[in-house]
Amino acid sequence: MNRLNHREGILFVLSAPSGAGKTSLCRELIDSLSDLRQSVSFTTREKRGGEQEGVDYYFIEAEAFQKKIAAKELAEWAEVHGNLYGTSLQTLTDAAQQGTDLLLDIDCQGAAQIKHSYERGVFIFILPPDYAELEKRLRDRGTDDETVIQRRLENSREEISQAFWYDYLVVNDDFKLARDRIVAIVTAERCRSHRTAYLLDKLTIKGEK
Amino acid sequence: MNRLNHREGILFVLSAPSGAGKTSLCRELIDSLSDLRQSVSFTTREKRGGEQEGVDYYFIEAEAFQKKIAAKELAEWAEVHGNLYGTSLQTLTDAAQQGTDLLLDIDCQGAAQIKHSYERGVFIFILPPDYAELEKRLRDRGTDDETVIQRRLENSREEISQAFWYDYLVVNDDFKLARDRIVAIVTAERCRSHRTAYLLDKLTIKGEK
Repeated sequence: MNRLNHREGILFVLSAPSGAGKTSLCRELIDSLSDLRQSVSFTTREKRGGEQEGVDYYFIEAEAFQKKIAAKELAEWAEVHGNLYGTSLQTLTDAAQQGTDLLLDIDCQGAAQIKHSYERGVFIFILPPDYAELEKRLRDRGTDDETVIQRRLENSREEISQAFWYDYLVVNDDFKLARDRIVAIVTAERCRSHRTAYLLDKLTIKGEK
Repeated sequence: MNRLNHREGILFVLSAPSGAGKTSLCRELIDSLSDLRQSVSFTTREKRGGEQEGVDYYFIEAEAFQKKIAAKELAEWAEVHGNLYGTSLQTLTDAAQQGTDLLLDIDCQGAAQIKHSYERGVFIFILPPDYAELEKRLRDRGTDDETVIQRRLENSREEISQAFWYDYLVVNDDFKLARDRIVAIVTAERCRSHRTAYLLDKLTIKGEK
């Protein structure tokens, strides 16, 4: 690819406490921004009905996953309910080199690992308008009992207390507004001069007599 | 104003070589973003028909202007065709404290002075798609003779060569797209965490038991 016509792909990392609406927002972003691709993670858990290899996850054996950890091939990884999940550093660097913008939906600890290992990325944290609303949303799901709701609220407080280092804070007071704010962040980051300096080179060369 | 409910106003500085479409873009931005105000400059030139004090400019005497320079009250100033033009530092700091976002349309040298004296601001440079298009736009105006056109093109090259330090580069290939990109930058900058950390304070306080 021609260096002068080329912008490096950007990694957008999205985190949010549960109940802040992250899953719906991510789905909406991938649907509405055709030039933004969801980052696909590796996992050791069993493939569920309807899930596709390379679309939902890359499904691998625990031994292969451990090798990736040992070889420092993962930008982040975590164990959840006995299964391993992780993002390959190669996935991120390939996308960057190809000029592909990626969306990675991950919790605060994963995001912090990415920031440390990948040293790039735009970090966006989605906030609920307030705790009362967060609690209401968790209850309205009707899927969790009181203990689970209380634990989720506790986790949310913990996650929000870590949000200070993110680049952007987006309040999800209104779904459409929140989506528009994230779309605006994607558009703005694509215009940042450290990413678009090749435009100046192009103009300088074309402009020379 | 309550610190916890308050975001500092942002200064958006827009520069562009002549022919890049800056004037139309600024007018469109002020019209479409009701919560963005055009910054009003001081000038020593005569008021023209239709111009309003405090809307188009603050019209002052040369002596008063010189006093402002001496007292370091100006964030930037310049002499153009024998008249003085400048932006008051007080205008900028008042808007910031009141949470008012300002748009300042100014050349590269003025922008550089602002960056130095005000030490804040979001700097956006508008680029023409290429030199051929810039030349075409200058010729299509039909107002300038060949010497003036050549001088403007030369100035444009000079301005573009200084654009590297701006925060954002926006290509005006299509007026509507360029406007949308600047609107996106305004929206995104309003979400930046160093400006919206008060949201975390609010959630932390409300969230405490």
